[in-house]
Amino acid sequence: MVKVACRLLALVVLAGCATPPQAPIAPPRPLSEVLAASPASDWRRLDPENTLYMDLPAGRVVIELAPAFAPRVIANIKTLVRSRYFDGLAVIRSHDNYVAQWGDPDDTRPLGSAQSRIAPEWTRPFDATLRFAPLPDRDTYAEQTGFAGEFPMARTGERAWLVHCYGMVGVGRGNEPESGNGSSLYAITGGPARLLDRNITVAGRVVRGIELLSSLPRGTGPLGFYEKPGQRVPIRQVRLEADIPGAERLGLEVLRADSATFAQVVDGRRFRRDDWYKEPAGAVDVCLTLPPVRTAPK
Amino acid sequence: MVKVACRLLALVVLAGCATPPQAPIAPPRPLSEVLAASPASDWRRLDPENTLYMDLPAGRVVIELAPAFAPRVIANIKTLVRSRYFDGLAVIRSHDNYVAQWGDPDDTRPLGSAQSRIAPEWTRPFDATLRFAPLPDRDTYAEQTGFAGEFPMARTGERAWLVHCYGMVGVGRGNEPESGNGSSLYAITGGPARLLDRNITVAGRVVRGIELLSSLPRGTGPLGFYEKPGQRVPIRQVRLEADIPGAERLGLEVLRADSATFAQVVDGRRFRRDDWYKEPAGAVDVCLTLPPVRTAPK
Repeated sequence: MVKVACRLLALVVLAGCATPPQAPIAPPRPLSEVLAASPASDWRRLDPENTLYMDLPAGRVVIELAPAFAPRVIANIKTLVRSRYFDGLAVIRSHDNYVAQWGDPDDTRPLGSAQSRIAPEWTRPFDATLRFAPLPDRDTYAEQTGFAGEFPMARTGERAWLVHCYGMVGVGRGNEPESGNGSSLYAITGGPARLLDRNITVAGRVVRGIELLSSLPRGTGPLGFYEKPGQRVPIRQVRLEADIPGAERLGLEVLRADSATFAQVVDGRRFRRDDWYKEPAGAVDVCLTLPPVRTAPK
Repeated sequence: MVKVACRLLALVVLAGCATPPQAPIAPPRPLSEVLAASPASDWRRLDPENTLYMDLPAGRVVIELAPAFAPRVIANIKTLVRSRYFDGLAVIRSHDNYVAQWGDPDDTRPLGSAQSRIAPEWTRPFDATLRFAPLPDRDTYAEQTGFAGEFPMARTGERAWLVHCYGMVGVGRGNEPESGNGSSLYAITGGPARLLDRNITVAGRVVRGIELLSSLPRGTGPLGFYEKPGQRVPIRQVRLEADIPGAERLGLEVLRADSATFAQVVDGRRFRRDDWYKEPAGAVDVCLTLPPVRTAPK
């Protein structure tokens, strides 16, 4: 009896309140075609003032920073980058199905004019200043998910936070919340790490080169730290795109989460129908639908 | 107005129907302590008849097969393994944040007495023969999730299927459903790949050595296939544990999903409280809580 009542109520809620995704009438076109047909205005050029280039021996990792969520620590990260703090440091940890982390293995390099303690920015108010594009799909951890700007976001009540999806970049910290100052950062290299949400400051997203971090040999020490200095991956340099001559900039752009093209991309995943897929999922989670990034066409 | 009604209804549903997890009164003990205190009866020894050892140059990958979900293709896989079909083949694909796949790069090795076509086993009836331990947490893709035996499972209505969590092993196929015969397998090496659920047969889970697959260099060809034969990772041999002398068996066991210890493990994640975590997630998804595996104590 309880089970029946429950089902009925659940149906009422679904029908009356949430907006369950409807299957598109025509099969969606392949992603490549959808993107190729998109107007230029559906894409947003990355802001050079909020784009980091981290050069590893195997290639470049590009990170888009999210100042709408972590303005204080991002200002500190920029101070560190501009003082060349990261150059010559290393990726010190590769924890399977979790994170790759970089920073000072000895924790002795002076921070210069950067702050050593920053008030945490784990959540922020959910308000109209966020350009929020919601997803209707239900989520295990939050009342609602979607994208703020092009970053994956969750919301419960009046608080909003960035979601620890694959490729998201966070601010390492010790047990003390204020210890996350941006001098050690991590990228999520495995399944979404949602237990971290609201417990640490998320500063941005790797938009290119995440495979350089996710395919690193796993560290064999506790928490995936490399046990021998020779196992660490050296960081050649980290630079802010704004400090690089225009001709050397990559010119990346991200598909706007509030665009018609992105809506098609998401629906194409939710109701994926092609010769291979037989049974569309009918839903997507926020981490499965991160807005695509490309080099801006000439 | 609609918003208020929706919230009220949602509250009713949560309070009256689902069983929302309650925060434990005392902080959970660390996972290591919980496991150390577990009775031996909370663990299940892997069945040698359903355990594969795949030896790569870097080490051993151990796979537990799930015959309750894919009896036909697992019988075929065992036939292939026992005829040494896989020995000398290779990992041919490493697709970032998705899968590593292995099999015959040339697709020419004869299958011997194994079948070349198998009726798909993408879902199965949800019935009392499954030892199902449900999770109360809501899921994006299915009405209910939990564990069948110790495998992550989802259910909607009367159909049940294994979930594409990190480390799950599936049966590669072409566009034709019957083409998945077990001669090419893949392991999920990135975020849960839930769009694959119900579209392909899942045959088991990597219970040891997934990092050997997930940290492989990514293939640069389409879909992450290796472009040059020299990039492939050779498979030395694949054997069924039952065919190996007892002294050489690893003796792995998995924590029973219906045990009191596992309930503590899950609650310890849902309401993680230690010196580092400040804000418990209050929920977990099925892929974040796969039952731990260990070497059986002497």
